[in-house]
Amino acid sequence: MIRVLLAILGLWLSCIYGAAMAETRIPAERLLEFSKTVLAAAGADQDSTEATSYALLHASLHGVDTHGFRLLPFYADCLRTGLVKGAPQIRVNLQRRAAVVVDADGGFGHLPSYRAMDEACALARDCGIGMACVINSTHFGAAGAYALAAANAGFIGFVTCNSGAFVIPHGGIRPMHGTSPIALAAPRPDGNPFLLDMATSSFAWNRVLRFRSEGRTLPDGVAIDAEGRFTRDPHAARALAPLGGIDFGFKGAALAGLADVLGGALTGMRLSIEQDGLALGDTKLGHFVMAIDPTTFIAQAMFGERMATYLDSFAGEPATMPAGGPEWIARRDRESNGIPVPDGVRGELEELARSCGTSLPV
Amino acid sequence: MIRVLLAILGLWLSCIYGAAMAETRIPAERLLEFSKTVLAAAGADQDSTEATSYALLHASLHGVDTHGFRLLPFYADCLRTGLVKGAPQIRVNLQRRAAVVVDADGGFGHLPSYRAMDEACALARDCGIGMACVINSTHFGAAGAYALAAANAGFIGFVTCNSGAFVIPHGGIRPMHGTSPIALAAPRPDGNPFLLDMATSSFAWNRVLRFRSEGRTLPDGVAIDAEGRFTRDPHAARALAPLGGIDFGFKGAALAGLADVLGGALTGMRLSIEQDGLALGDTKLGHFVMAIDPTTFIAQAMFGERMATYLDSFAGEPATMPAGGPEWIARRDRESNGIPVPDGVRGELEELARSCGTSLPV
Repeated sequence: MIRVLLAILGLWLSCIYGAAMAETRIPAERLLEFSKTVLAAAGADQDSTEATSYALLHASLHGVDTHGFRLLPFYADCLRTGLVKGAPQIRVNLQRRAAVVVDADGGFGHLPSYRAMDEACALARDCGIGMACVINSTHFGAAGAYALAAANAGFIGFVTCNSGAFVIPHGGIRPMHGTSPIALAAPRPDGNPFLLDMATSSFAWNRVLRFRSEGRTLPDGVAIDAEGRFTRDPHAARALAPLGGIDFGFKGAALAGLADVLGGALTGMRLSIEQDGLALGDTKLGHFVMAIDPTTFIAQAMFGERMATYLDSFAGEPATMPAGGPEWIARRDRESNGIPVPDGVRGELEELARSCGTSLPV
Repeated sequence: MIRVLLAILGLWLSCIYGAAMAETRIPAERLLEFSKTVLAAAGADQDSTEATSYALLHASLHGVDTHGFRLLPFYADCLRTGLVKGAPQIRVNLQRRAAVVVDADGGFGHLPSYRAMDEACALARDCGIGMACVINSTHFGAAGAYALAAANAGFIGFVTCNSGAFVIPHGGIRPMHGTSPIALAAPRPDGNPFLLDMATSSFAWNRVLRFRSEGRTLPDGVAIDAEGRFTRDPHAARALAPLGGIDFGFKGAALAGLADVLGGALTGMRLSIEQDGLALGDTKLGHFVMAIDPTTFIAQAMFGERMATYLDSFAGEPATMPAGGPEWIARRDRESNGIPVPDGVRGELEELARSCGTSLPV
């Protein structure tokens, strides 16, 4: 029984973190400094450099490697080609008592999203709840970074945005949704918060590519081939399927719709179908950010007790974790042992370092 | 190709609405009047009677039969046994500028939830966003009823609550979450709104029971047996699995966690693990309700254009529908042909009618 549970746990972790591959470990703080150096060299101003670097650090520390430091060469390219402004003029405008717009002015999405969550928390302190739409933005990395920022300040934080269409709707064969993330974090006293940070597809495309390179077979219901049939062959995969797979994909598709409603329609920015599903380089993107002050309804201590009771209940059930559990395991490992950098990514980062007149730390 | 798509569509609809069974059709307005008669006879005051009856009508009209008129015998019992107050004193208290608490005073959840959404919409008109926690509540039926009420008034409506633990967390064998629903609705001009209304499990328990009675095999990954193994035998099923199934159930479990955070911890009411997963008769429940005024950020016409572009894009992709599509199909059918009442439910409603000195309409 215990062996079965450990096997399930192992399978779960390997699903989330990927199988071991040839890699180096680099201390997190050195990668953070490296990130600041190369983004500044590529033309980002200090605020953008810091916010983007901290968002990359969040992802790399918490095991969300698709949105971690491996994005640096792409981000540097965005700056050098002028696709993303290095020195945006971020503007914040109070629209109503509990609502602000943060205009990202075509810069990276990280700075305006941290700023939006700061504003939402300030509004929540006054109004109980606060929201912010980020407009004219670009890629913002891991949604959980901003939700967690709220939780670390004592608020419940919620974040969503859409992304380029690469996921079929349930029953369809043409991508109409992105992997559009949803994130919610909630604080607990003296412990790790609740942290939901999920794509609304089962798989990220990056995971399909990793399965290709490792010669592995895909789980059922995560991808379709060129004819629109579900396939387990990662080489045949051409698009992703929504969370819920073959039978219940209408639920994942509906959640991706929520991301399009709040991140696309409400912000007046692009819908997933109006973005490029193959690249991360879209502009005119919207993000939706919200914070709730729990003390609006309930004494701080009572809310803490409720959260602790919920989160601690998982300890009594072997092989389970609350949302965020895998992230805290990754962080503990990576804070001690460094961020894993696969050889392929390492080569790209070394090339980026050379182009910026610096070197990749070890 | 067309036949395959039609088959997929048929499978989808049969999944959602269940296979045909022996049933009578009864006009919706007659069932609505019947509901009012029996709830009043069982001791509900006029406001509770009307709100609960309209919530049941919403569910029965939109194909959410688990939360429709079939619940009437259960609701009448709740009133007769005193489990639910027939004449609650609903109290609304403004906590902060954009936040109210609605105390349900131990009555049915429908009246305070409609009231909470009304209040949230009024706050949103002023503040951009408004939220309400319903406390001291009981079963509130279909979450989508309140989200749709917001959309019908021009707002984006969001609703969630937890429910008694009957769904295992990912990797576990003991139920720790409910089928806890999440609902979001958003209006469009001259057409049906976006309507997401989903359980965070793949299946409802009711569906498992229906598969039992019909001798059908369950889809993969929706239920576990007494030993905690996934099973496709509905007779062996003992608990439900979260959305995402065998491989990706951590996402469905995280969404159920969101419902516990907002519906349980934030309201200071019971967590799913503190409720009875086998009955619907829990008291001291919380619900979370939120409304956003889209004109906070974007002109009405522009928001309408964005929503219409999103929703209409599905028309170009055969065999797909946006969230809410199956509901509008059900409503069109049921408004014309009546609400389907399976023979078993019909017998229960006839018995209820006799006990109230009335008769079931035809």
